[in-house]
Amino acid sequence: MKILVLLSGGVDSTTALAKAIEKVGKGNVIALSIIYGQKHNREIKSSIELANYYGVEHLYLDLTKIFKYSDCSLLKQSNEKIPYESYEEQIRDSNGSPVSTYVPFRNGLFLSASASIAISKGCEIIYYGAHSDDACGNAYPDCSPEFTDLINGAIYIGSGKQVHVEGPFVNWSKKDIVKEGIRLHVPYNLTWSCYEGREKACGKCGTCIDRKHAFIENGIEDPIEYEE
Amino acid sequence: MKILVLLSGGVDSTTALAKAIEKVGKGNVIALSIIYGQKHNREIKSSIELANYYGVEHLYLDLTKIFKYSDCSLLKQSNEKIPYESYEEQIRDSNGSPVSTYVPFRNGLFLSASASIAISKGCEIIYYGAHSDDACGNAYPDCSPEFTDLINGAIYIGSGKQVHVEGPFVNWSKKDIVKEGIRLHVPYNLTWSCYEGREKACGKCGTCIDRKHAFIENGIEDPIEYEE
Repeated sequence: MKILVLLSGGVDSTTALAKAIEKVGKGNVIALSIIYGQKHNREIKSSIELANYYGVEHLYLDLTKIFKYSDCSLLKQSNEKIPYESYEEQIRDSNGSPVSTYVPFRNGLFLSASASIAISKGCEIIYYGAHSDDACGNAYPDCSPEFTDLINGAIYIGSGKQVHVEGPFVNWSKKDIVKEGIRLHVPYNLTWSCYEGREKACGKCGTCIDRKHAFIENGIEDPIEYEE
Repeated sequence: MKILVLLSGGVDSTTALAKAIEKVGKGNVIALSIIYGQKHNREIKSSIELANYYGVEHLYLDLTKIFKYSDCSLLKQSNEKIPYESYEEQIRDSNGSPVSTYVPFRNGLFLSASASIAISKGCEIIYYGAHSDDACGNAYPDCSPEFTDLINGAIYIGSGKQVHVEGPFVNWSKKDIVKEGIRLHVPYNLTWSCYEGREKACGKCGTCIDRKHAFIENGIEDPIEYEE
C-alpha cells in the first residue's frame, strides 16, 4: 500500500506524514507540496526540509495561476492585510461568510490534484491534515465535514475506486495532533505555520495563536522561535 | 448572473457556450480552456477561434504538470497508441476498468479549478458539456452520474454556496446536442474533436466516430473535413 501525503510544512500535515510513514514505511510514502501564490515561500522551505529529514519522495505542484484572480489576503497579489486574530475571532467577525483568508476552493482543488497524481503514482490513499478545529462555521466552507464527505466520495468514485482520501485527524483537536506528534518524535522545529514569512514566526496571526495554544495545552514549549 | 463555461473546442462544450450566451448574454460569459498535455494543440486553437467568434472573455489554464506521471494514451509523454475504436468498443474491451484514454481524475480536477476561478471572477454557474453518452460503464469513472452528483455537491458546499455546476446536456445524447446547436447556429466548422492533431480529422478515433454519427443522425453533414 502506498500513501500520498499533502504536506504544507505545518504541524498538522507533518504529523500526518509521520503517521503515514509509521503505517506503511517511508518507501511507500510520497509527499506532495503545493505552491499556490502564498505571500512567502517559508512553507515550501519547511516541506523540503521535512521530506529530506524523513527521506521520502517529494513532489511539488505550482497552482499559482489558478488563484491569480483571487483577492484572498494570503496571496501575493492581494493588497489586503493578513488579520491578526485567532480563527475564532475572524469567524465571529465574518458574520457567516467566507473570511479574507479563504483561498477559493483551495481544499477541493488540492485534493483533486492529489487524486490525479495518486492515480498516476499508484497510491491508494491520500492523507491530509484536516482536523476538527478547521471546521469553523462557514468561514472556510471547504473545511466542513459536509464538504469533506462529498469531495472524498467524488475522488473515490471518479478514480474508479482506485484512490480514497483519509483525514487521520478529522475528529481530533490540534492539541491531540501535537500529542500524537510528540509520540511520533515529529521534528516540529522544522515546521512553519505563520502566515507571515519573516525570519521568526510573528506569534500574532491566527495560525500562530492556534499553534502556540496546542503546545501549551500539551505542557511543552513550541520549539520554533517567535518574534515576541 | 455570470456563467463560466469549460470550453474544450469540441461539439459539446461549444454548444454549452452557445446556450450560456443565449441565457445571460456574451458579456456575462467567461470561457475557460484547459491545457493538460494533449498530444496536440488543435483543441486550444479551436477554442481561441470560438471565443473570438462569440466575443467572450477567454481564460486558459495549463495543468500539464499534474498529469506528467500518467501514461494515458492521449497525453504527450505517453508511448501508447490512441485506440481506433468507438467508445462502445473501447469500453467492451476494457472489462470494466478505466480505458487507456482515461486522463486521471480529469473532470474532477477541471471542475475544481473552474470552481476556484468562478469564485474569484464572480460567476455563480459553471457550465460544462457532459452528456449521457459519456457515462459509459466504468471506462471513464469521472463521467458517471454518481461522480457528477458528488463533485457538484462538493463545489456548491465548498464554495460557501457561491457557485454551482450545471451540465445542460447531462441527460441528452450527442445527437440532441447537435440538434440544439443547429438551432443556435453554432459554427461547428470551427470545432475540433479528433484525438489526433493532423490537418484534417482522422475520422477513425472514438471521438471522430461518435461525432460523425451525431451529424448523420441529424441528417446533415459535419462541416469539418476528414482524411477519408
